[in-house]
Amino acid sequence: MTRLKEIICTVGVDLGGTNTRVAIVDAEGRMPASSNFNTRDYPRQQDFVERLAKEVDALFRILKEEGYTLRVKGIGIGAPCVDSRKRSIEGATNLPWKESFPLGRMLEEATGLPVAIANDANAAAIGEMTYGAARGMTDFIMLTLGTGVGSGIVCDGHLLSGKRGLAGELGHVTFPFASDRLCACGRKGCLQTVCASGGMVHTALELLATTTDPSPLRQPGGKLSARDIGKAVIAGDPVAKCVMRITEEALGRACAEFVALTDPEAIILFGGVANPEEMDAEHIRQVMDNYSLAIYRGRVKVLFSTLKGSQAALLGAASLPLHNP
Amino acid sequence: MTRLKEIICTVGVDLGGTNTRVAIVDAEGRMPASSNFNTRDYPRQQDFVERLAKEVDALFRILKEEGYTLRVKGIGIGAPCVDSRKRSIEGATNLPWKESFPLGRMLEEATGLPVAIANDANAAAIGEMTYGAARGMTDFIMLTLGTGVGSGIVCDGHLLSGKRGLAGELGHVTFPFASDRLCACGRKGCLQTVCASGGMVHTALELLATTTDPSPLRQPGGKLSARDIGKAVIAGDPVAKCVMRITEEALGRACAEFVALTDPEAIILFGGVANPEEMDAEHIRQVMDNYSLAIYRGRVKVLFSTLKGSQAALLGAASLPLHNP
Repeated sequence: MTRLKEIICTVGVDLGGTNTRVAIVDAEGRMPASSNFNTRDYPRQQDFVERLAKEVDALFRILKEEGYTLRVKGIGIGAPCVDSRKRSIEGATNLPWKESFPLGRMLEEATGLPVAIANDANAAAIGEMTYGAARGMTDFIMLTLGTGVGSGIVCDGHLLSGKRGLAGELGHVTFPFASDRLCACGRKGCLQTVCASGGMVHTALELLATTTDPSPLRQPGGKLSARDIGKAVIAGDPVAKCVMRITEEALGRACAEFVALTDPEAIILFGGVANPEEMDAEHIRQVMDNYSLAIYRGRVKVLFSTLKGSQAALLGAASLPLHNP
Repeated sequence: MTRLKEIICTVGVDLGGTNTRVAIVDAEGRMPASSNFNTRDYPRQQDFVERLAKEVDALFRILKEEGYTLRVKGIGIGAPCVDSRKRSIEGATNLPWKESFPLGRMLEEATGLPVAIANDANAAAIGEMTYGAARGMTDFIMLTLGTGVGSGIVCDGHLLSGKRGLAGELGHVTFPFASDRLCACGRKGCLQTVCASGGMVHTALELLATTTDPSPLRQPGGKLSARDIGKAVIAGDPVAKCVMRITEEALGRACAEFVALTDPEAIILFGGVANPEEMDAEHIRQVMDNYSLAIYRGRVKVLFSTLKGSQAALLGAASLPLHNP
């Protein structure tokens, strides 16, 4: 007689501009089944919901056929431009739906399962708290460094949402060290104009234009990217290392202000640019301590996410149903 | 036969450097009984606790003798330098106790009543939510403008506390418009160097030194104070009005950054300097909207506290037992 294998699990959905990835995630953060499909194939909201519901159902079926019993706690979705109060996606520029998309409610109707939805950075913060570097922490700020700088703020064990679900736009807090840089938002001085991938490239181009030092960044074999800078740091290129120092300095100065908001235990760095082989968290911490109010000095850690690579967004989404909205 | 009058109430304690004020406060914010004593008469912690417990007991007795039945929900204390997690006062410079003072626990033992304790600015925020301008709001930021700039941040219906109870030091967030001003904290550029009473006097002295315009501020009959500036604004003095415009501009620019933290419904201005006859909330709102990220523009109100004068601190303290810690 074979014993039934029971899994307590959630479904994680990472809704991106190109791909939508779906995974069954168990309590330890393992993914016994996952799949993905092309987001752009479903410009009609209803079609997208139906495809997503089918995908979830197919994953359940696969596991049942393998002899598992599933206790599904709910579905969690990480996506851009989420209004977490309305559980909708609102005019995301890189998604096919320009009108308000009440995905939470629609998927709930299609699957009969409870659906939680949060913006990617907030989902990552919850994921970090559930499976990653912030496990056991009640107070931390997650900075996601990628195309932009996003953030998820957890204070007193609670992910801050705000009146319209728009809390935690720390990438658009402005700083004097960035006052000459125009942001995609139309303002000048936003943190992300220095610390997101495009900002780092901006810094590199400025340095290259004002020195004649040889550097692999001068001929990256195409358009210079943050990835090129990271690789050159590892290879020991002084120009790339200087770009990274400037980025770290900016992060440290920004974090010195952020700690006065929510008195966190740690700042957690996440995303493509936050690579411990390239970026120096200890340098960021030192700058932060230098600039911060005495009561916070020496008290706040700077850590890298331990949710690795492409799994992070999925794990973050999957952890949403485990926490209060 | 006289009917017993039942009052559901809390005890509010406003612990200040000079006076400690105590009041019984009912659900509508009325104070049927209150008293006060000199804080400095009790340099020993135990003596202070005993005096405070006696004072509370005396107020209960007065109301009982007047025929009231009391249902006391607890005691709330507003004080400087509170560690809300430890429920203690930690080395407040203007209080007689230099060592850690576990007032919460000690008063609980002395009275048998549950005791909540919070720093003054946080107590004011809870008071505003219970009895004042923020009644019914779940998301707002309270800025207390006085000798310093304090703040209490309420997000998702919850007063932010942080890892060590030190969340919400918005008066010490730094800004480029204040970069030449040294703060009492030892750093430069803190918001309070412009928007607290001393900062306003600083601005006034700078203006007076660079113009020869006649102004009542040139001879305030003693050392110039923020009070003098406020009075001169009401009297129509152009120099004082310019000081106030500069203060409002600074507040607006700061609030433009703060809204990106917690997506509030309103900024609420409280404290001696925040007087609607002198300060223009609509000007602050316009500057804030000018500088803030588009998603917040036109969405956030700027309001004055409706808790008036000396009652505010007491009402704030009294409302603490009605909310989760």
